[in-house]
Amino acid sequence: MKLYDYTMAPNPRRVRVFLAEKGIEIEKVQVDIPAGENLAPAFRAINPRGLLPTLVLDDGTVIDESVAISLYFETLHPDPPLVGTDAKSRAVIASALRHMEFDGLQPVAEVFRNSNPTFANRSISGTEGVPAVPGLVARGRASVARFYTSLNDTLAESEFVAGDTYSIADITAFCTVDFAKWIQMRIGDEHPHVKRWYAAVSSRPSASA
Amino acid sequence: MKLYDYTMAPNPRRVRVFLAEKGIEIEKVQVDIPAGENLAPAFRAINPRGLLPTLVLDDGTVIDESVAISLYFETLHPDPPLVGTDAKSRAVIASALRHMEFDGLQPVAEVFRNSNPTFANRSISGTEGVPAVPGLVARGRASVARFYTSLNDTLAESEFVAGDTYSIADITAFCTVDFAKWIQMRIGDEHPHVKRWYAAVSSRPSASA
Repeated sequence: MKLYDYTMAPNPRRVRVFLAEKGIEIEKVQVDIPAGENLAPAFRAINPRGLLPTLVLDDGTVIDESVAISLYFETLHPDPPLVGTDAKSRAVIASALRHMEFDGLQPVAEVFRNSNPTFANRSISGTEGVPAVPGLVARGRASVARFYTSLNDTLAESEFVAGDTYSIADITAFCTVDFAKWIQMRIGDEHPHVKRWYAAVSSRPSASA
Repeated sequence: MKLYDYTMAPNPRRVRVFLAEKGIEIEKVQVDIPAGENLAPAFRAINPRGLLPTLVLDDGTVIDESVAISLYFETLHPDPPLVGTDAKSRAVIASALRHMEFDGLQPVAEVFRNSNPTFANRSISGTEGVPAVPGLVARGRASVARFYTSLNDTLAESEFVAGDTYSIADITAFCTVDFAKWIQMRIGDEHPHVKRWYAAVSSRPSASA
């Protein structure tokens, strides 16, 4: 089993933090995204989508998408539970996870990719020859501002993103907030609940994964 | 328990098809998206994100996002299984589902929202005052064209989107292909495997849900 990884990128980090919370160690292979290694034939032969993280099982099965890879390990190693334990908690966590992805991580990524010269012709992950869409930068920044407000509201009501237990939704939120530093959108003084939560999740041993 | 729904929209349809495959019937409340009912205070009081579908449990718990809602019912009603049954099948289906969402459904939605006058100031679902980003239309159409090619390659190798069993990934792909009719991007003669698969999934009783 091998995990194709790139240390600097937010999506592979989501899996590394997840594995660290589970205490699982697996072989990792670095693929340099800014240098375009994920778009080169060698990696395309492994994952035609050109995306990281990618997990290859011993039988050759290829699984990409950080949530799908995390789910693989959750099923094999259910403790500590990170995606819920019954119908309601699983659905609540899955819902919150998607809020973090669609309202937070995606707009941060849109701003980053469509304003960074390294990705000038890579507006969509895994695809070459797609020019930047400049209109996504302002739209994305406004979305990220709304995300921080909404996250602050959520964390005013609960200790973690999806209730009183640390979950995969916190992992995605944590990686999103750190990724947002690259677009200079940090937690503000107007988000005290996000600050309290960030101090807690960033002090977990998994945060350095 | 109530499902807030809008018959014409692709994301609520994903849940309706899922429920039909499971043989589950629940109360539905229609919320008119083009008329902006999802953005009005009455619905915002139920789901501040303003998105459909939204499931409200009898204890008041609110679950949005079609995948999270589907997962709720899968856990309570595991037969027939639609998200896999073991670590590998669950991960393979979750990965394929996200391919359908990110490579297919999202670009179709981007083209639709950013070119349709009804959504001129609603470039992002659930949010008002976000002007259309015209650059997303050409980018999205190119993505949808790549999606059809990739889906055809996948279906050349397997009966269904995630292997030899109908799954939630087929539901999302089916709703995506039907949604793409709204942007005049239909299955072409160059996609014979998609045609074969579409004929099969669209003839299932759930297709009319």
